[in-house]
Amino acid sequence: MSVLPHSHVSPLSSSSSAFFNQNTFSGVRTQIVSVSSKKAGVCKCVAASPAEQTAYKTKVSRNGNIAKLQAGYLFPEIGRRKAAHMLKYPDAQVISLGIGDTTEPIPEVITSAMAKRALGLSTVEGYSGYGAEQGEKQLRAQLASTFYTNLGIEEDDIFVSDGAKSDISRLQVLFGSNVTMAVQDPSYPAYVDSSVIIGQTGQYQKDIEKFANIEYMKCTPENDFFPDLSKVSRTDIIFFCSPNNPTGSAASREQLIQLVKFAKDNGSIIVYDSAYAMYVSGDTPKSIFEIPGAKEVAIETASFSKYAGFTGVRLGWTVVPKELKYSDGFPVAKDFNRIVCTGFNGASNIAQAGGLACLSPEGLEAMHEVVGFYKENTKIIVDTFTSLGFKVYGGIHAPYVWVHFPGQSSWDVFSEILEKTHVVTTPGSGFGPAGEGFVRVSAFGHRDNVLEACRRFKELYK
Amino acid sequence: MSVLPHSHVSPLSSSSSAFFNQNTFSGVRTQIVSVSSKKAGVCKCVAASPAEQTAYKTKVSRNGNIAKLQAGYLFPEIGRRKAAHMLKYPDAQVISLGIGDTTEPIPEVITSAMAKRALGLSTVEGYSGYGAEQGEKQLRAQLASTFYTNLGIEEDDIFVSDGAKSDISRLQVLFGSNVTMAVQDPSYPAYVDSSVIIGQTGQYQKDIEKFANIEYMKCTPENDFFPDLSKVSRTDIIFFCSPNNPTGSAASREQLIQLVKFAKDNGSIIVYDSAYAMYVSGDTPKSIFEIPGAKEVAIETASFSKYAGFTGVRLGWTVVPKELKYSDGFPVAKDFNRIVCTGFNGASNIAQAGGLACLSPEGLEAMHEVVGFYKENTKIIVDTFTSLGFKVYGGIHAPYVWVHFPGQSSWDVFSEILEKTHVVTTPGSGFGPAGEGFVRVSAFGHRDNVLEACRRFKELYK
Repeated sequence: MSVLPHSHVSPLSSSSSAFFNQNTFSGVRTQIVSVSSKKAGVCKCVAASPAEQTAYKTKVSRNGNIAKLQAGYLFPEIGRRKAAHMLKYPDAQVISLGIGDTTEPIPEVITSAMAKRALGLSTVEGYSGYGAEQGEKQLRAQLASTFYTNLGIEEDDIFVSDGAKSDISRLQVLFGSNVTMAVQDPSYPAYVDSSVIIGQTGQYQKDIEKFANIEYMKCTPENDFFPDLSKVSRTDIIFFCSPNNPTGSAASREQLIQLVKFAKDNGSIIVYDSAYAMYVSGDTPKSIFEIPGAKEVAIETASFSKYAGFTGVRLGWTVVPKELKYSDGFPVAKDFNRIVCTGFNGASNIAQAGGLACLSPEGLEAMHEVVGFYKENTKIIVDTFTSLGFKVYGGIHAPYVWVHFPGQSSWDVFSEILEKTHVVTTPGSGFGPAGEGFVRVSAFGHRDNVLEACRRFKELYK
Repeated sequence: MSVLPHSHVSPLSSSSSAFFNQNTFSGVRTQIVSVSSKKAGVCKCVAASPAEQTAYKTKVSRNGNIAKLQAGYLFPEIGRRKAAHMLKYPDAQVISLGIGDTTEPIPEVITSAMAKRALGLSTVEGYSGYGAEQGEKQLRAQLASTFYTNLGIEEDDIFVSDGAKSDISRLQVLFGSNVTMAVQDPSYPAYVDSSVIIGQTGQYQKDIEKFANIEYMKCTPENDFFPDLSKVSRTDIIFFCSPNNPTGSAASREQLIQLVKFAKDNGSIIVYDSAYAMYVSGDTPKSIFEIPGAKEVAIETASFSKYAGFTGVRLGWTVVPKELKYSDGFPVAKDFNRIVCTGFNGASNIAQAGGLACLSPEGLEAMHEVVGFYKENTKIIVDTFTSLGFKVYGGIHAPYVWVHFPGQSSWDVFSEILEKTHVVTTPGSGFGPAGEGFVRVSAFGHRDNVLEACRRFKELYK
């Protein structure tokens, strides 16, 4: 595949460790070499070369906010661990239930629409150049009518994007450095890391494993994974993910009513990450905008990634209702529009054609099938750990199973599972200090792999 | 304008049906008021509506940096003017030589590769989920060997992106608010606007039409569109676009040697925008890295947009050489890698398949043909204005023609041309105060339209 030989990275000479060594997790890192896993390639861009030792330095100061970040971003780190393991056990059949990456093919009704759009770009009639930065009108309208039926969300409230992760960063640029923020603890690491990068936080406090000036809202079995809001300090921004990554729990309607009231009382803005909404069943809300009054206090970000297998295709959207206002009455959407127009040029038109196909009747049915498949995986994993006597959370409204290993270190459990079963999971503490003692098992995998992983879990914990 | 009833959140007892009520989006579409220009949709999110008058305001302060921005982002503003004109003259054949949007179909060798990749995503073997945030290994390697042959740029120096505009914003997040910056005046507005947004600047000074704390490097016919560096104050960052948008001029090797020396003497970092490099002919450099020593002081951002018609497909790349260091010796690439990993999830895999096809022998040939076509357009426009007695700049190494209207207001000229010829151009002052008195005419257009526009110019200025 590659034009370059795979082997040339292995030297990882001294300077590379200097370049890459953030003395993060353990010594495993020094062994890491780029291999077949595409994720493993991640570290290469910082790999060493003799040229690195040039003496010249610019006089530009390193951004102090970025310097505050700890270790690497979680998922590339998992990728590195996996790659190292594969080097150590070249013959092992490694199964990844780690980074939450979709595995099932995209339904044909969707890919054929993308292929058609791509081929059409070679014709005079089918060609299109720059699209609206906010996304194609028709897609925005379909998103509004499909996901926000009767909720008063309009086409022009919706900004189509290349995915929720990108939008989270754009939202941080929108808010700037002079706001305070709260996150669920544990939570998807992009919230905290992007907050640090934009300068909203203080330094990392090693003893409590938290950044200063972030309000960590503890979510544990003790509080049903919903924060005790009476103990949460007011912040400007509240990141809230439901169904939650990593705990897999979904906030109930009653809880979300509390959350909206809390935001309203405090004049806060909720950034509601609903990337797993289609995994929800029953009366549990799928959108924060199901809660009356939420349009005045909430933004919602969402994605096709986990519904249609679009993790690589890249398509998401963010809803910024026109009712949402800053303290001076200025509409937040107007500034977000400016951010989008200045720093983004729209999602790929081919991906947008795929998004439209996702929202056709056949596409919706196909997405429901994909979601249903992963939910069956989830049940298999839940049943396995339950049968082994573990306390297991999540896994009902989300494709994540949150397994409790009381009193143990998440990274130790992660390492033991990897070493003894060749299954990659994600250590709970990677999502925040309240994740310590848990491991997240993702239900994204081929059925055979999920079954085999569960067989190995049973072997390990019998 | 809304496609949805305004009635408020119904109790949603069984919300799943509300969530996915497919009936809602069948007939809806016909009601969407469609202004033919897709760009016209841009302003909608800021349009007034009764909902906007809700009394509730959050207590979150508006980001003061964004409040500093003037007017709208230039190109959406052009889009609004165009849309208004089309409303006024519904029967006019409006020709856009304005926003620099490509018009020619993408060569089939490229779209067929994208279609193949898209269809492959429906197969077990062809499916892929998350790719490396930095781009696919093979594409990075091909970019290095194709565009940086023998320049010592390696695969791992290259970060594949969804386009140069997005990367410019990510670079601003990388640098943060505590750096100073310089830009060519005039220049592509994303540099200044993103600098304002991230907080590097002071307020806008209406009298001189500049933001405080930005060094504007005047580029006019008097200095051959290359700044007099002896008069430029030291800044941390120097944005430099060559071939230049909007002036169409390309810096010579001698000039770029000066620029690199200037940066090196000052310890500055050059962000070199080479989005039009393939339009360069002769010995004029196509990459800043052709200049010895540039790897220690420069980042280069580039794009497939103007070579392969990828303005809507979205694919670009940024080179951050490992030799580039902050004042403390820390490699800039390492922090950029973190920014990319935290706030981006890679370019669309389908677009990346297109990028790979662009770099095949057939793809390169096809891109050269596309570039050649636009260069012919450029010559037609240059010849037209020259024959009418105008002083014309650019148009040799770039698809932009920079026409001088001495003593006139750019916006007045823009409006007059639009009103009298129905041709959309771009007012030079939109790119900075030194652009006043100029109009940029883009060579991106079907041949018939370019010829017709030139016929109308001849009519207007005969």
